[in-house]
Amino acid sequence: MTSAYDLSDGRRLRADRARQVADVLRCQIGRGAFESGVLPREERLVAEFGTTRNAVRDALDLLRAEGLIERLPGVGTVVTATGKVPHGLHRLLGLGETLHEHGEIVNEVRASGLITPPPAITSRLELPDDSPVVYLERLRRLNGVPLSLDQTYLEPELGRALLKEDLVHEDVFVLIERLKGPLGRAELSVEAVNADPHSAAVLEAPRGTATLLVERLTHLADGRPVDLEFIRFRGDRLTLRGTLHRSL
Amino acid sequence: MTSAYDLSDGRRLRADRARQVADVLRCQIGRGAFESGVLPREERLVAEFGTTRNAVRDALDLLRAEGLIERLPGVGTVVTATGKVPHGLHRLLGLGETLHEHGEIVNEVRASGLITPPPAITSRLELPDDSPVVYLERLRRLNGVPLSLDQTYLEPELGRALLKEDLVHEDVFVLIERLKGPLGRAELSVEAVNADPHSAAVLEAPRGTATLLVERLTHLADGRPVDLEFIRFRGDRLTLRGTLHRSL
Repeated sequence: MTSAYDLSDGRRLRADRARQVADVLRCQIGRGAFESGVLPREERLVAEFGTTRNAVRDALDLLRAEGLIERLPGVGTVVTATGKVPHGLHRLLGLGETLHEHGEIVNEVRASGLITPPPAITSRLELPDDSPVVYLERLRRLNGVPLSLDQTYLEPELGRALLKEDLVHEDVFVLIERLKGPLGRAELSVEAVNADPHSAAVLEAPRGTATLLVERLTHLADGRPVDLEFIRFRGDRLTLRGTLHRSL
Repeated sequence: MTSAYDLSDGRRLRADRARQVADVLRCQIGRGAFESGVLPREERLVAEFGTTRNAVRDALDLLRAEGLIERLPGVGTVVTATGKVPHGLHRLLGLGETLHEHGEIVNEVRASGLITPPPAITSRLELPDDSPVVYLERLRRLNGVPLSLDQTYLEPELGRALLKEDLVHEDVFVLIERLKGPLGRAELSVEAVNADPHSAAVLEAPRGTATLLVERLTHLADGRPVDLEFIRFRGDRLTLRGTLHRSL
């Protein structure tokens, strides 16, 4: 038995050890394990992980590059203020609903109006090929910092009514339910995509930043699809959390 | 009503239009909408999206940069052979189980053995602070191309038994069930993270590539946590898919 992370007779690379340490620390940060927001000192981490000081330093460098931690003179290594917020995969919720404990969501409406979309959009919304839809594009900020860029395609009758509502402060889900009654299910896909230069600039994130790209088709309780969204979350600001079961 | 994607009196930037077109096309590619694997010609896309040729070209450039499409002389723009595979969020499944229709998963064992982990690991596995665990690190390839890099921490008794099994060809989930009986639930978190240089090299992906980082704690059916994993999926090779419901 090795007493450390250093398996494989010392042949294990420093970079492999650093990744391992970084992943455990990232997970602890995400779970709020460092109550004061201050990470343990390097010597302590070296002892806890049973690895080299270089591997610990490299791990901290990786997390700093991800924007999760920073070094404060006289304090040590601290979790950055913006941090990551959790978004549940348990239930279909809008961002404002999900994050009300974490602060205020304010949306900047970048575009809105009736458009003629491609068949790829009308077919998902089960509309005739030549049907218009309402398009809505919002940059969503949590406590003033960009969290996501959302492109939304809405069934036209619902969409027209929705454009008269308070799109700056309200979730689309809340507005749909007010106008049309309860939502049912949503199918979603989740991908990791490097932001293109313009999207990164809009999100105020570094060039090429990793984004969580969520495509989500939401149905009313009666099964009608009404809301197709393409959501780009800044990877450094959000974690999706859920539970899976082995048997259905 | 605008007849195009060009809202906001022409003030809408070409980059915004390109992102919009790229997101719809990415989604169509993911859903296998282009049966032959060949995308429509540029003129057709310009007409369908009601936007400019420049916006369509920029959108195709974005998808090419993501590794989703390529230009074949004499054929046109085609979906790349590796493509993205779907991994369900509906049920707890191993990669081999999930992807058996898409090809063969072969694992390269990069490290394995008994280690003394930090308390952050033992506490998640509900083990005494000084308990050893079995660590297993595998690079998982689908049809020969890296798909994920998995770091696995296992309850020691289970882990020791598991190390004698065929880790090259089998899912850990399948092995656990063979050794210990049925699995129950798993809690997971999903993040988008830019790969550090070494992880990108191991995954044979470009520097800084966006990865889906999944942290997953899996329990036996009796509730005991036995398997903590940190999984890095190449963002250009995998999509998570699921369904959420508004009411629980």
